[in-house]
Amino acid sequence: MNVFVIGLGLIGGSMALDIKAADSRSTIFGVDANPNHAKEALDLGIIDQIASIENISEADVVIISIPVNAMVVLLPQVLDAIHDNALVFDAGSTKSLICAAVANHPKRRNFLAAHPIAGTEFSGPKAAVKNLFQGKTNIICEVEKTAFKLQERGMKIFADLGMRIRYMDPKSHDKHIAYVSHLSHISSFMLGKTVIEKEKNERDIFDMAGSGFESTVRLAKSSPEMWAPIFEQNKENVIETLEEYIANLQQFKELMLKNDFSAIFDEMENTNRIKEILKGITIKTI
Amino acid sequence: MNVFVIGLGLIGGSMALDIKAADSRSTIFGVDANPNHAKEALDLGIIDQIASIENISEADVVIISIPVNAMVVLLPQVLDAIHDNALVFDAGSTKSLICAAVANHPKRRNFLAAHPIAGTEFSGPKAAVKNLFQGKTNIICEVEKTAFKLQERGMKIFADLGMRIRYMDPKSHDKHIAYVSHLSHISSFMLGKTVIEKEKNERDIFDMAGSGFESTVRLAKSSPEMWAPIFEQNKENVIETLEEYIANLQQFKELMLKNDFSAIFDEMENTNRIKEILKGITIKTI
Repeated sequence: MNVFVIGLGLIGGSMALDIKAADSRSTIFGVDANPNHAKEALDLGIIDQIASIENISEADVVIISIPVNAMVVLLPQVLDAIHDNALVFDAGSTKSLICAAVANHPKRRNFLAAHPIAGTEFSGPKAAVKNLFQGKTNIICEVEKTAFKLQERGMKIFADLGMRIRYMDPKSHDKHIAYVSHLSHISSFMLGKTVIEKEKNERDIFDMAGSGFESTVRLAKSSPEMWAPIFEQNKENVIETLEEYIANLQQFKELMLKNDFSAIFDEMENTNRIKEILKGITIKTI
Repeated sequence: MNVFVIGLGLIGGSMALDIKAADSRSTIFGVDANPNHAKEALDLGIIDQIASIENISEADVVIISIPVNAMVVLLPQVLDAIHDNALVFDAGSTKSLICAAVANHPKRRNFLAAHPIAGTEFSGPKAAVKNLFQGKTNIICEVEKTAFKLQERGMKIFADLGMRIRYMDPKSHDKHIAYVSHLSHISSFMLGKTVIEKEKNERDIFDMAGSGFESTVRLAKSSPEMWAPIFEQNKENVIETLEEYIANLQQFKELMLKNDFSAIFDEMENTNRIKEILKGITIKTI
């Protein structure tokens, strides 16, 4: 099986490693806009060969794991160029605009819209790790628009990676993921910003930071190349979550100003049930 | 050495374990307002004996690790009751009001104000773990107000625990810690709240949450008993950090509304330098 991975970063690189491990007869072709990344992926043994988008007609499977703004441009071009029996799937963190970009494409049935909920705050080929997807959720959108035998090929790969599948429409995906992923990134980036601004004048401040702070700002290490386009494509939902978050912070501040620490206690106690909720999440800590 | 630990939770329990490990001849007496916690600490081998505050005159070292509102009441009473050569230190996350509570106490020189920056989101005796403090920072305030030979006794314990020491005045401590610890907790609690509120109507939302979300809301599992009093005692500083955080989130939202995703990219790229900053933090992940 010829597998083309376009975008050899954390997600694409990690997929390449697991697909090769599951089926050693597969040949992994790596495509990256950055020649240094392609070279690095080859040196790290993530891919078997560096390839170019021009060779895409040789692919049986194409995985596109690039920023979502580049995705909506490249995905139709990839569909144009593949053979009739090839499967293309993406790994984008937004789904509505990506699905819309190929809604009327003659090869729409060759595309499977996917969002593997897995990752770390690191990026580039060096960030690729084995078993990243084990036990994680893969959201599949508009599954009925993909040819049945290509669905099967995709599901075989996702099963090899150890993923559990959830089916969802693109609109619901984008709305929900804004809460559980996109908002977390903004809260983390802005927390990092707030503390860094302070640190300009107070050099010693980070000497006092512990693992709690580290955990909360971890996502602020994430790649702007990846995340600015996500916020742009999911603008409406993200703004809604951001407004609710700001309103909750404002209310917390008002309670403090009113010295209503009993209400603050209740707020925290109610939110403690996140413990139970999070037990449902399979966590692979990095 | 008779060591009394008042408050047998995460911090007190973990200290008891390491002190005993470093000096097996020490006897660890455990005091807790909750008899079940005292019993649990005994059963878990965290303490050698359950004790009562009435026996405190037998102590050579007293560690007080209880919520900061209870601390300001109990600390003067403990100083009243100890013998002249006993060391008392605390582990509170605020320092100004705690130091003020004993500023004029006749036994002020028996007290060492400490804040070990270590912890997890868990609480109670079961949360106690060995080596929690290894490589972590311990902030000592007003060291000059503690008798020299008692400073030495305290430093020996902190060295046994593997902590590095930073000296600071209580006012600076409270101001800085608001940024790197107290604000993180609020951002995490309010993120948890925002998502839980949404989840009321959308049961599937947490099925989509990954390790990034888990990391960002981890602190929302923290104990309200511990944290409501911290916010109350550090109200002024916490409100200041909260206002700066809200202003940064608002500005992020404005940039999104203006479709200025290039500015959003820059915001994130500037904040990425948190990577370098965090390398300085010794992280013991839980």
